Amino acid sequence: MKIGILGTGVVGQTIAEKLVQLGHQVMIGTRDKQATLAKTGKDNFGRPPFSEWLRNNSKVQFGTYSEAASFGELLVNATSGTGSIEALKLAGENNLAGKVLLDISNPLDFSKGMPPSLTICNTDSLGELIQRTFPKLKVVKSLNTLTAYLMVNPGLLPEPTNIFLNGNDAEAKSEVKKLLTTFGWNEKDIIDMGDITTARGTEQLLPIWVRLWGTLQTPMFNFKVVVAGK
Amino acid sequence: MKIGILGTGVVGQTIAEKLVQLGHQVMIGTRDKQATLAKTGKDNFGRPPFSEWLRNNSKVQFGTYSEAASFGELLVNATSGTGSIEALKLAGENNLAGKVLLDISNPLDFSKGMPPSLTICNTDSLGELIQRTFPKLKVVKSLNTLTAYLMVNPGLLPEPTNIFLNGNDAEAKSEVKKLLTTFGWNEKDIIDMGDITTARGTEQLLPIWVRLWGTLQTPMFNFKVVVAGK
Repeated sequence: MKIGILGTGVVGQTIAEKLVQLGHQVMIGTRDKQATLAKTGKDNFGRPPFSEWLRNNSKVQFGTYSEAASFGELLVNATSGTGSIEALKLAGENNLAGKVLLDISNPLDFSKGMPPSLTICNTDSLGELIQRTFPKLKVVKSLNTLTAYLMVNPGLLPEPTNIFLNGNDAEAKSEVKKLLTTFGWNEKDIIDMGDITTARGTEQLLPIWVRLWGTLQTPMFNFKVVVAGK
Repeated sequence: MKIGILGTGVVGQTIAEKLVQLGHQVMIGTRDKQATLAKTGKDNFGRPPFSEWLRNNSKVQFGTYSEAASFGELLVNATSGTGSIEALKLAGENNLAGKVLLDISNPLDFSKGMPPSLTICNTDSLGELIQRTFPKLKVVKSLNTLTAYLMVNPGLLPEPTNIFLNGNDAEAKSEVKKLLTTFGWNEKDIIDMGDITTARGTEQLLPIWVRLWGTLQTPMFNFKVVVAGK
């Protein structure tokens, strides 16, 4: 499949690598190609600059948001939450219309210090805002509740854990679910929470997630929902 | 130990029953004793009226918020979140000063329909509000992330799950942790998140909790934090 990824950070890179391994054609998109290539030095996670990553992942095509959105039959939103709406606007409504968007973004607000708070929550969510702003896009929120490396390597945890789906379109959720199983997720561990308003629940997992990262001193963890009688 | 519980709903009743089983002296408190006793008919959970529960649990003493707070060496806040501050004011600052409060409340807002949103979240929490309003109280938030029956019967789940502690006072957290182990929790499964601001994380678990209740069609579940390499 042709897949367009918006966002060149750790999430975009990790998803791109996995998709290439799985045999997909992948284009990763950014706002300003020259600016992204010109970045030097390691990022906040100690990772090498994007240009180096791109050299090491030569099967990944590189474009603008608009080019990546036009390229993809399925799209992935791996931008930071505060930049998601603008990135999708730059991608262009015509390039989004009718397509499935796997939305991994979280509305994290780092402007008030650490740990981050949320820019939108409680009676709304970023998933809903994206769906409202781009009504022809089929938004499916998932994978936003764990660290990038585990998104594509769930088997690194000592036992199966859960991820969630939030979205209005049943077919789109089914398509994303199928893709996630190729990442290593068991179908039974992918919980369909319901329509896109249920993203309020999954996005509000982040406040405990960021604090658990501090408490556990590692981002390599995930939640498992343990149910009585199961 | 002498323990005072504020709140006569399902959480207060369930905790009271467990504490009596464990040999503690327990007083459960309410705003207006006559009004609470006068309630007839089942509650929202299909439970019989409080007066019937009280007859069946004759070892539990019954008093006002003030009487229960005065009685207890350790206190439990089992009121609904929107009523917690008022209940604690009625309990009386003198009856609270210097005591540990196990705060089980959640700031659930049912006024905007189902599922509930939160009255306070993101950059503040009910736990913090209680601690700020009653600075001499030693607030320890815990048990607010699962259904009442599981709070005191964690072994009903097919595997160990996690609960959290949020609070400023290390000794108070240690005391609550000890009490929770007598409820059946393994010490290693009780995660100390840090100071009371970390209640922002645990209280914001509720938005996904209430939606999982709907999805799973049962409240008998809890979260387990699965960590790589453990």
